[in-house]
Amino acid sequence: MAKGKKRVEAITSMETDFTQWYTDICIKAELIDYTSTKGMFILRPYGYAIWENIQHYLDREFKRTGHENVAMPTLIPEGLLQKEKDHVEGFAPECAWVTMGGSEQLEERMCIRPTSETLFCEHYAHIIHSWRDLPKLYNQWCSVLRWEKTSRPFLRHREFLWQEGHTMHATAEEAIEETERMLEVYADFCENVLAMPVVRGVKTDKEKFSGAERTYTIECMMHDKKALQSATSHYFGDGFARAFGITFADKNNTLSTPFQTSWGLSTRIIGGLIMTHGDDNGLVLPPRVAPVQVIVLPIAQHKPGVVEAAEAVTRRLEAAGVRVKMDSSDQSPGWKFAEYEMKGVPLRLEIGPKDIEQGQCVIARRDTGEKTAVSLEELESTVRALLDAVHESMFARAKANLEENTYACATVEEVKERMSNQGGFAKTMWCGDEACELYMKEHCGVTSRCIPFAQEHLGDTCPICGKPAKKMIIWGVAY
Amino acid sequence: MAKGKKRVEAITSMETDFTQWYTDICIKAELIDYTSTKGMFILRPYGYAIWENIQHYLDREFKRTGHENVAMPTLIPEGLLQKEKDHVEGFAPECAWVTMGGSEQLEERMCIRPTSETLFCEHYAHIIHSWRDLPKLYNQWCSVLRWEKTSRPFLRHREFLWQEGHTMHATAEEAIEETERMLEVYADFCENVLAMPVVRGVKTDKEKFSGAERTYTIECMMHDKKALQSATSHYFGDGFARAFGITFADKNNTLSTPFQTSWGLSTRIIGGLIMTHGDDNGLVLPPRVAPVQVIVLPIAQHKPGVVEAAEAVTRRLEAAGVRVKMDSSDQSPGWKFAEYEMKGVPLRLEIGPKDIEQGQCVIARRDTGEKTAVSLEELESTVRALLDAVHESMFARAKANLEENTYACATVEEVKERMSNQGGFAKTMWCGDEACELYMKEHCGVTSRCIPFAQEHLGDTCPICGKPAKKMIIWGVAY
Repeated sequence: MAKGKKRVEAITSMETDFTQWYTDICIKAELIDYTSTKGMFILRPYGYAIWENIQHYLDREFKRTGHENVAMPTLIPEGLLQKEKDHVEGFAPECAWVTMGGSEQLEERMCIRPTSETLFCEHYAHIIHSWRDLPKLYNQWCSVLRWEKTSRPFLRHREFLWQEGHTMHATAEEAIEETERMLEVYADFCENVLAMPVVRGVKTDKEKFSGAERTYTIECMMHDKKALQSATSHYFGDGFARAFGITFADKNNTLSTPFQTSWGLSTRIIGGLIMTHGDDNGLVLPPRVAPVQVIVLPIAQHKPGVVEAAEAVTRRLEAAGVRVKMDSSDQSPGWKFAEYEMKGVPLRLEIGPKDIEQGQCVIARRDTGEKTAVSLEELESTVRALLDAVHESMFARAKANLEENTYACATVEEVKERMSNQGGFAKTMWCGDEACELYMKEHCGVTSRCIPFAQEHLGDTCPICGKPAKKMIIWGVAY
Repeated sequence: MAKGKKRVEAITSMETDFTQWYTDICIKAELIDYTSTKGMFILRPYGYAIWENIQHYLDREFKRTGHENVAMPTLIPEGLLQKEKDHVEGFAPECAWVTMGGSEQLEERMCIRPTSETLFCEHYAHIIHSWRDLPKLYNQWCSVLRWEKTSRPFLRHREFLWQEGHTMHATAEEAIEETERMLEVYADFCENVLAMPVVRGVKTDKEKFSGAERTYTIECMMHDKKALQSATSHYFGDGFARAFGITFADKNNTLSTPFQTSWGLSTRIIGGLIMTHGDDNGLVLPPRVAPVQVIVLPIAQHKPGVVEAAEAVTRRLEAAGVRVKMDSSDQSPGWKFAEYEMKGVPLRLEIGPKDIEQGQCVIARRDTGEKTAVSLEELESTVRALLDAVHESMFARAKANLEENTYACATVEEVKERMSNQGGFAKTMWCGDEACELYMKEHCGVTSRCIPFAQEHLGDTCPICGKPAKKMIIWGVAY
């Protein structure tokens, strides 16, 4: 059978060229399109539907944890961006600047938001006056713009979609608790929805967000063993609040300064999905965010009753809350098999004359290719169980990849050697100095990914400089 | 009792100053905040939650009618914007221009999208090749920017949130059908969800969208009898498609040009809601988009069992799918009454010790102030019926306002006199000439709102120029 020939041949294999394989999937699974706006991409319906499902889950979690959505302006006047020194130093070099409105030259240029801390702070200064006004737990879904030199679908866009949470609290403890809570929301979401195992940790000072006191991160390992920083959560202390003059009267009527957090996850995570789960036949989507969870294909569809039986199955699954689609178009079965493999649909349900006779259908899993005959009587429960099984086994596979490629190293040379042979995450002790991070970058080509929450004692000294070690740190090559 | 004193006094009455009344509501109901980005506003949680409910309804309708969501870049290179002549003439004067990325001067400046026809067309040229690729039914939820000289909350922002549908069809008939279908989706939404009666019609050539062959509109009448263009739907013919070189092979393998539509509704509609339904105590929200449909207030809440009873009622309504909130804060009852009146919550449910004894609660309607004792046994069904009743009576009231202030005129003088005395919509016959529109603008201060679908024969000649009349047209003063 010409199963998938046309399309499968068109995609580069992972082993041959991982980068090209990745781009091929983005294009051929119809996730994105290029535009004449350099460095920016179109999210096509299939790509955007994945983002909608991500939004749906996260938005529910944000609301469940007491957050409210708002919309801030897209533009930030330069003076406002400059109010917090570290922040503007970090972001100004990658801002796009609006200098003209209509035919008028602006007196003060404005940047398209690279992130919105400054806008939120200006607003918080208006609306926070008393302890009654705290905490403020806000989030916004929007796009931001960073003028990157190079671009790659999902991983590095000049403009990307994201959500940014911005909160204000009466005490530092509460703000730190929030920062950690939201990291856990992300971690849980990655593992239980996207089937992407994460390493939770703290960024070094060198790698933290511009203006933050502390940045928490979840790091994922891709199929090529590189790291993807998948979401971050920042604790700001009261630095921005002081810069923006935000104060409140506490319960004793003393004027105090509140403490702040921000946290974000972007469409980058879709790049992460692709590189974690994809294979040489295309995308493999985790069932809980797949726009189509089950594709129903009538087999020998010209025969009487086949399309009707496929429709009946589709309607039953729809009624059971499954995201299901039937394809009874005149394309060949081979084309359809390849198409929905390329698109990573978790389950393919085939139903033909013989199946109908036997009161069954055949379900093939995208992740393993395994086929099962399923009695139509147990259709809904079996499909539900299969979707969960696909999720679990995708997670287990990714977890094994992470664990097999994370190792402890006692010397810089060991890091260098294993990194160049195996890739992955190297764990070492670390003294806490930025100089050692720079050394590792230069000698091993790695950056610090995080100081993981799950610490191990691998020794007493920093293998880079020999000074007493403070923490265990993880190194890797990052997207 | 000090019912609402603090806040109700702070709002200007409609009769005194409608404009100030409107702004007061936007601020005091916490819908928006000003920012230092001139002409742009923050949608605060309560304002944004209304938009989320609007999105929720419309997005479901768009998907039900076969549309898919996408995300396009925010920036349009100048050369791309210029590809369709009428379009660029209409929009270039109100574009904001990005001229610098980081520290680099751009070779070609880019505008922040004022609307995205050009981006969609560029993409359609990539993906439309065969009749199999049609129709393309896309929509995006985003913000757009138009460099307006003046601004007012919701009604005129330099940046506003909207949705823009962009579709391509094999035939002109199909495209016109789509344009009309989407206008009907908007009209139905306005009437059945927002309780805003609409006049459906076609814009004159003078008032149509830049680049469109025909623009359909729904026009609403505000409380001050001015018009608000509430949503538009455009038929483009094949003008853009030709300019962008979009072609497809039809079933006979002949190269053809597809036909296009676009349609949009923005946060402007929230301004319309306020001006249609609000009163001197603040916002009055139509129940189907109200972020909180029922506010539960425990009365004498220090007495044993009261807060518990209020909580039980809240949980029951929540379980019944009602958007409900309880306020057991230590604010005074007077403050709470005024607060939720200001915020336009459709139903206020009070429950105190006496009510508990009698197995009842008291529900007050925001629109009429009417209070009813409701048996707790019939809580859910009564609340549902009351929410529907509030919707119906808000719609009837707005409909009466529209009908009482729409009148036929036989002469220009009559239009002028009634407009200055009564305001509203004047219906006259019209020859079809733009010169007559300009004359009406100059002499009566009105613009053509639309050529309504519901035509009447008021005479044979145009009362402006005396030439034979072609259509009945509606005049008004618009926001």
